[in-house]
Amino acid sequence: MRKVLIPKKDYVKELIKIIRVTKDEQKLRNLLSDYHEKDIAEAITFLTETERKHLYRVLGSERIAEIISYFDDAEMYLEELSLEQAAKVISYMDADDALDVLDDLSESKKNEIVSHLDADAQKDVQKLLSYEEDEIGSCMTNNFVCISEELSVREAMSELVRQAGEHDNISTIYVTDTEEKFAGAIDLKDLIIARENTPLQEIVSSSYPYVYEHENISECVEKIADYEEDSIPVLTQDGKIAGILTATDIVELVDDAMGDDYAKLAGLTSEEDLKEPTIVSMKKRLPWLIILLFLGMAVSSVVGIFESVVAVLPIVICFQSLVLDMAGNVGTQSLAVTIRVLVDEDLDTRKKLALLGKEMKIGFLNGASLGVMALVFLGIYIHLFKKYAWMSAFLISGCVGISLVVAMVISGFVGTIIPMFFHKIHIDPAVASGPLITTVNDLVAVITYYGLAMVFLIDIFHI
Amino acid sequence: MRKVLIPKKDYVKELIKIIRVTKDEQKLRNLLSDYHEKDIAEAITFLTETERKHLYRVLGSERIAEIISYFDDAEMYLEELSLEQAAKVISYMDADDALDVLDDLSESKKNEIVSHLDADAQKDVQKLLSYEEDEIGSCMTNNFVCISEELSVREAMSELVRQAGEHDNISTIYVTDTEEKFAGAIDLKDLIIARENTPLQEIVSSSYPYVYEHENISECVEKIADYEEDSIPVLTQDGKIAGILTATDIVELVDDAMGDDYAKLAGLTSEEDLKEPTIVSMKKRLPWLIILLFLGMAVSSVVGIFESVVAVLPIVICFQSLVLDMAGNVGTQSLAVTIRVLVDEDLDTRKKLALLGKEMKIGFLNGASLGVMALVFLGIYIHLFKKYAWMSAFLISGCVGISLVVAMVISGFVGTIIPMFFHKIHIDPAVASGPLITTVNDLVAVITYYGLAMVFLIDIFHI
Repeated sequence: MRKVLIPKKDYVKELIKIIRVTKDEQKLRNLLSDYHEKDIAEAITFLTETERKHLYRVLGSERIAEIISYFDDAEMYLEELSLEQAAKVISYMDADDALDVLDDLSESKKNEIVSHLDADAQKDVQKLLSYEEDEIGSCMTNNFVCISEELSVREAMSELVRQAGEHDNISTIYVTDTEEKFAGAIDLKDLIIARENTPLQEIVSSSYPYVYEHENISECVEKIADYEEDSIPVLTQDGKIAGILTATDIVELVDDAMGDDYAKLAGLTSEEDLKEPTIVSMKKRLPWLIILLFLGMAVSSVVGIFESVVAVLPIVICFQSLVLDMAGNVGTQSLAVTIRVLVDEDLDTRKKLALLGKEMKIGFLNGASLGVMALVFLGIYIHLFKKYAWMSAFLISGCVGISLVVAMVISGFVGTIIPMFFHKIHIDPAVASGPLITTVNDLVAVITYYGLAMVFLIDIFHI
Repeated sequence: MRKVLIPKKDYVKELIKIIRVTKDEQKLRNLLSDYHEKDIAEAITFLTETERKHLYRVLGSERIAEIISYFDDAEMYLEELSLEQAAKVISYMDADDALDVLDDLSESKKNEIVSHLDADAQKDVQKLLSYEEDEIGSCMTNNFVCISEELSVREAMSELVRQAGEHDNISTIYVTDTEEKFAGAIDLKDLIIARENTPLQEIVSSSYPYVYEHENISECVEKIADYEEDSIPVLTQDGKIAGILTATDIVELVDDAMGDDYAKLAGLTSEEDLKEPTIVSMKKRLPWLIILLFLGMAVSSVVGIFESVVAVLPIVICFQSLVLDMAGNVGTQSLAVTIRVLVDEDLDTRKKLALLGKEMKIGFLNGASLGVMALVFLGIYIHLFKKYAWMSAFLISGCVGISLVVAMVISGFVGTIIPMFFHKIHIDPAVASGPLITTVNDLVAVITYYGLAMVFLIDIFHI
């Protein structure tokens, strides 16, 4: 049952064939009208320049506008259009998609096209450009239907039909009051099944969720997604509807936000794109590496304090990487859990303390399990391969085991408290926590391990 | 401009007040009808048991059904309902939401409720339960409108109104042929603005994207999201519509898929929940830690080979953690980038080689930058604080610098090739790559660093 027996239709292959074989332009246009824009966009990437230019002519600006937002990198295709046609295509696009495409272009090309846009599109694009990149307003679309709360169900329906030609996000219809302020939303289904004489008020949800245009994306995206609505309105400060976020916008925002957290956990300043040049990728990675290098130097100087231990008992260096790696792993686990919790939920102090306690408890329990394993297996290993007596071998492996327990409890603590601290002082914990935690954990692990070796193995037992 | 000046309405606080103050049940019901189910769900978590039980009576099963899917943990609230009412509530829910709620319950409670469901709901839930957890069929809903392609626009519209009472995902209407097989989809907007005498064929997209019910979620979710549609049909093997995925389902799937990748990068077997018991979290973390412990022991035995180097030149141990950490960081960066690329795109061999080359180039360039910094700063540090002569100090720091370059190039290579390899043999690279990469990088870094120190510092320059 697990295998897909019937292969899926390969629309892209079909499309390439149709485009290459069909000579009649009208026929080609009709055939293409059946296909999804995403598939046409993918098919286009396989065509020659001549084939593409022919296709642009057949498709016309409005259809190209629908297709172009599916390209990963639209620049190359826009370059193949005349400036006038490019501007016409962009004018047909939703403002947020238009902005995405324009952002792929060089600054001069972008300005050139923007100046050729029709007045409406220019206004819409300029509006979105006025937001900071991390403001939710920069992602909204003006593609929505809005009616006055004073209409009857019948009038609302005909107003919807009138607006639906231009605005195709119709599953939620927004309602404004006499001052043009946001007054609620109607589910299209409710409008369709409502009797003509029902007052519109009865089917309006007046406490419909909304966001303000200047809210920070990463702070509100999870909350928006939680409402599980087809669209959410974006309001200006005075309560008017500036635009909406559609469910597909929200998919993209969630994807981006998680991708960013993922990248930051891996020590990248932001998510990377396959097609970006080496130098851009390099710049995204170098900042963290430089910080880590200098923090690493700090750890090195602490290790230096224990040079005397190593000189007396060189075997202890064998297990340094083990203790440090394990502490690092536990810290990363706690960090990752804490960051997701901070994004998803609003924690009060009691819940934060509970989380902290839980992380330390997990650190202790896992540390104890691993500590016992280390004691047993390393003890045997040290006796057999390093030729230490059983007693000494188990003292050394015991030292590793105890270090693991201590280091893992502290790592769990550090991995939880540091992101909480950064969250509290409004610094993105996903960015700032990583290097600090690595360093603090390394320090803790080094001091615990070598300190224990010095006191326990050398001073007390004189191994 | 960055601050939100007007505070958002706190619907949850409003709701708590309304519920506590309003004595008249009919009035309360009317007031609540205006609020979003998510906000009511949140308000409920602040009520006492008596208040909740009163509220359940006022709301009625259908509204509770809409609210209950917003709870993080519905078990406690379902327990407060009688078995009959719980079953009635579940019957009103979309099958996929019902399944989510039922999964929170104990096995016995779950079976008890399922046996009390009405026949339709029972069939729907059993159907979803028949899928594996990682199959896309397990996430679909049967809440969609489906019409025959033989209808006229007028008939289609009245069929829609008839079905819309029960099925509220109406922005895309699915079309079946005479054999009841999936034949395409109609955008509701197109149906609304179509003239009554337009043939339905003209507004049907016959090449609409779809998935098969047994496809693996993680393999198809990004592709589904790429279509940016409000819903995607899930087909049986013989081409019939089994259900649909709505945009809000897709938001959830993307969120889950990314959350899982994120968790795996951090060394967790799956994403953790704040409310799960310590022992469950512990079990999610221990497997990786045990694997890493034993791999770490392997690294330890390799470090052991170089004990003689350390005995002669104890200062080299100071910088072991630095070289290992940096190699590990670079490996993680390459790993994270490669995993996202593998999820997002279909790469041919040429593109894979290009990515591999790019990662190594970045490793080299970043390694060189950091190597030079290490050479300069560590050289000065060793001379000033460790009292080595300038010459020796720079030989030692040079050894660290060269190790950084070599280790970072190889880490970039390993961090890219290992996930590609696991992807090729159909093992989830996000799970399998981490421990292997850490270990291989540690080994490479240890051998490079101590090897270089042995040959370069001790054998050649006799420091």
